[in-house]
Amino acid sequence: MKARVFVSLKTTVLDPQGKTVRAALQGLGYPAIEDVRQGKFFDIAIASGVEREQARKDIELIAHDVLANPVIEEYSIEFLD
Amino acid sequence: MKARVFVSLKTTVLDPQGKTVRAALQGLGYPAIEDVRQGKFFDIAIASGVEREQARKDIELIAHDVLANPVIEEYSIEFLD
Repeated sequence: MKARVFVSLKTTVLDPQGKTVRAALQGLGYPAIEDVRQGKFFDIAIASGVEREQARKDIELIAHDVLANPVIEEYSIEFLD
Repeated sequence: MKARVFVSLKTTVLDPQGKTVRAALQGLGYPAIEDVRQGKFFDIAIASGVEREQARKDIELIAHDVLANPVIEEYSIEFLD
């Protein structure tokens, strides 16, 4: 089983990396780019034989406790199969 | 219009960040996690009024030339609307 966890800054939190990319793109001649926000994702392979329900619980805990900082970041989880 | 560009290391390239996360998760009591690979994504807002075909070309160029390093990274593009 494979899961993908997306972690990004909350929309209320400034994203200087994204702002920098946007400024660079404007300078390179892409005026149509209005905003860029950067995030990270984790592709997680889960051992076969684990129940989907258990995997879902584990990934939820992992995302909340390890991968994201819930103070400034939000996350979402997607199962790829 | 919104596009999301995913950038990740090619599968043939070692991912020490992912390996570190995996080791940490094993230590925290998640033995079912077999592999973790980390990547980044960019949420890009494109001005309304831009043709979808033009936007697709621009984002493809941006992903290839600016966001990813094609020597060690691969990218994929997803339009969110």
